[in-house]
Amino acid sequence: MRMYDLIIKTREGQELSRDEVRFMVQGYTEGQIPDYQMAAWCMAVYFRGLSAETTAELTMAMVDSGETLTWPELGSEVVDKHSTGGVGDKTTLVLVPWVAATGVTVAKMSGRGLGHTGGTLDKLSAIPGFRSELSRTEFIRAVQRVGLAVVGQTGNLVPADKKLYALRDVTATVDSIPLIASSIMSKKIAAGASRIVLDVKVGGGAFMQEVSSAQLLAETMVDIGAKTNRCTVALVTNMDQPLGYAVGNALEVQEAIATLRGQGPADLTELCLALGAEMLTQAGKSDSPKEGRQLLLEVMAEGLPIRKFRELIGIQGGNPAVVDNPKLLPAAPVTKEVFAAQSAYVTKIQARRIGLIAMDLGAGRERIEDEIDLAAGLEILVKVGDRVRQGQSIARIHGPTAIAVKRAFEEVQSAIQFSQAPVAPMPLILARVSR
Amino acid sequence: MRMYDLIIKTREGQELSRDEVRFMVQGYTEGQIPDYQMAAWCMAVYFRGLSAETTAELTMAMVDSGETLTWPELGSEVVDKHSTGGVGDKTTLVLVPWVAATGVTVAKMSGRGLGHTGGTLDKLSAIPGFRSELSRTEFIRAVQRVGLAVVGQTGNLVPADKKLYALRDVTATVDSIPLIASSIMSKKIAAGASRIVLDVKVGGGAFMQEVSSAQLLAETMVDIGAKTNRCTVALVTNMDQPLGYAVGNALEVQEAIATLRGQGPADLTELCLALGAEMLTQAGKSDSPKEGRQLLLEVMAEGLPIRKFRELIGIQGGNPAVVDNPKLLPAAPVTKEVFAAQSAYVTKIQARRIGLIAMDLGAGRERIEDEIDLAAGLEILVKVGDRVRQGQSIARIHGPTAIAVKRAFEEVQSAIQFSQAPVAPMPLILARVSR
Repeated sequence: MRMYDLIIKTREGQELSRDEVRFMVQGYTEGQIPDYQMAAWCMAVYFRGLSAETTAELTMAMVDSGETLTWPELGSEVVDKHSTGGVGDKTTLVLVPWVAATGVTVAKMSGRGLGHTGGTLDKLSAIPGFRSELSRTEFIRAVQRVGLAVVGQTGNLVPADKKLYALRDVTATVDSIPLIASSIMSKKIAAGASRIVLDVKVGGGAFMQEVSSAQLLAETMVDIGAKTNRCTVALVTNMDQPLGYAVGNALEVQEAIATLRGQGPADLTELCLALGAEMLTQAGKSDSPKEGRQLLLEVMAEGLPIRKFRELIGIQGGNPAVVDNPKLLPAAPVTKEVFAAQSAYVTKIQARRIGLIAMDLGAGRERIEDEIDLAAGLEILVKVGDRVRQGQSIARIHGPTAIAVKRAFEEVQSAIQFSQAPVAPMPLILARVSR
Repeated sequence: MRMYDLIIKTREGQELSRDEVRFMVQGYTEGQIPDYQMAAWCMAVYFRGLSAETTAELTMAMVDSGETLTWPELGSEVVDKHSTGGVGDKTTLVLVPWVAATGVTVAKMSGRGLGHTGGTLDKLSAIPGFRSELSRTEFIRAVQRVGLAVVGQTGNLVPADKKLYALRDVTATVDSIPLIASSIMSKKIAAGASRIVLDVKVGGGAFMQEVSSAQLLAETMVDIGAKTNRCTVALVTNMDQPLGYAVGNALEVQEAIATLRGQGPADLTELCLALGAEMLTQAGKSDSPKEGRQLLLEVMAEGLPIRKFRELIGIQGGNPAVVDNPKLLPAAPVTKEVFAAQSAYVTKIQARRIGLIAMDLGAGRERIEDEIDLAAGLEILVKVGDRVRQGQSIARIHGPTAIAVKRAFEEVQSAIQFSQAPVAPMPLILARVSR
């Protein structure tokens, strides 16, 4: 078997067999297949795509390139949730305690942020003492004792994806739906997920800009799930404006706390209900998402989710008092309000730019090795479709210095656009994909 | 400037500027741009193509990546001829002396063969004593004394193309018309050609299988010529059956000699007349190809071409007596005739297979380092459209051993196909492209 022939096949739009895909992934991971052949193959995939069958084979070949985790100690199958990343996306912080409050075990692996998008582990690290780097034993014990935990990924999971993603990143072959889908799904499957709920974000602040691409990505991942016996459902959701109001680590923890009390922004609450209802259904806790949503509302009425969040913080070494006293969270030395220059309707909030402004303030990383400022960030206090009065506060900037805040102040003003004519609010959940 | 952005541009079908092309070619040649980025770029070109402008810029950037030759000593502009390669293509052997016989100076650089196609230098090396590795001084002196010479390429010409071609060869990106065109034209231009006649072969025995692709390649090369001020004309010619009868080095020299006496196969003679007429016109020796053809026929009638061939052989150290005594050429120890099994019309002669059978007999190379057997080869004594009688000799095999000849015998029988219904002969010259 020669990689050359596999490039030709893919270039001509022909299927690769299981053996061919495994030969390629293994050979590349072990260094027998050179980067230049893999780069040519990736570009051929960019133009030609891959069949559903080949995409699933690629996913499993990548899973098998390294260690895989299983969680027999947890006694039940693990439900996982994954977001393709957005601005102000603190869903995991809300969802994990809320779903755990219904009695479903949630063992979640999360990552750190890069560029204009944040990461769950960064957000949790704003809680004094919180440790996400648990050993396997600590992780299992936490889940067994309180029914939930959120940790970073450990072990040499999916080395093929690490190597392939690094190559795609420098050869302009990242934007290929089968390659994106197999990359995401291989990591979820290797981490032991048998039931997967996906939040595929679309819009200016997301990786996918077009609803059609996001829909196709969702379908491709659900297909991979079906072909590899991992029950998978995906929601395609709006990321044309930040999710909730807060963008920045400590600010997002505060907003998650409010949401867990039932006092959060409507969009964030609604998305957590929708994703949570899918998780409950996947876990067998409810017979349908509709029933799952009802159950989530019931536990919220009883005040259980916020209690679970305190338990999560406590079991992972953090100070649960932050839940009741936000002053224990890091706070920025300089804050500044942005006021509406005129009475008008909000037509657009450039989500990606908001993410980059927050990153510039120190809330995010430009490079993996950068340190972040946990206190820095933005509150965007309006949503598309809102009517604002002249002089109303529309945003609040939290930064380390007056200069940084001033720069952000000017940027934020041009990132939010207005019109005199009324504007419809944006729909949040655009599609649901399952099989 | 980043190679990453140039890959994106090409992937999206956008133009590259002159500076961008030069940055890329220079960076790649010098090793600052890695193979994997260049491989991704080549695959993007495979799918997206390049504009005529960018193709010409790529050609000149490759020319400027190494040494370039000029021939001020020759006093006039150098007319060059290039064939994209075929089976039994001994055109250069005939064309150089024939054109030189009209008084046009011909300083030709040629190459060696690979795979199913032969090379001019291999063919000439069948002549005892013939040296194609002349120094620049020897080459110039030969051209000045007798008006013609055929040598191998010297100097570090077009290192960018050497490196890029080697990469394309292992990344399935050879079959891209702008990349093929710029590769060929860069080598011709770097070798000092200012007027170029191209023989673009199409059919089973050629690199291009489809007339439309060959036509496009011809147009692309003529365009490059126009944009770089190298007067270029191309003929698209049939390679669905071997050219002439002989395939193999000494056998082809013999056939070239016959043709230079006016006794060669009709197709070879006609192709040399057509290409030679273009060369004479480019050199200013004739006002039109029609007039050039007339001049070639006149010198043939006077017996001048064969005389020029003797001079060529003599000045390059070979024994001119081979022209009159073919026994001085290498001869194979075993020969075998193939006879027609029935009376019928020839419908097809699989040119590529004939080339590979000759290679297997030892006439060609599978790898660059392979030795070749100068005596080995085939004579295919029929042409598509011919009517043969049962028992008529249709081919003759020349090989080193009875076993090799027997294997070739069986192969040749299935490479020539017949029908009872009459078949039209194939047209030889399919198109002429100029600007």
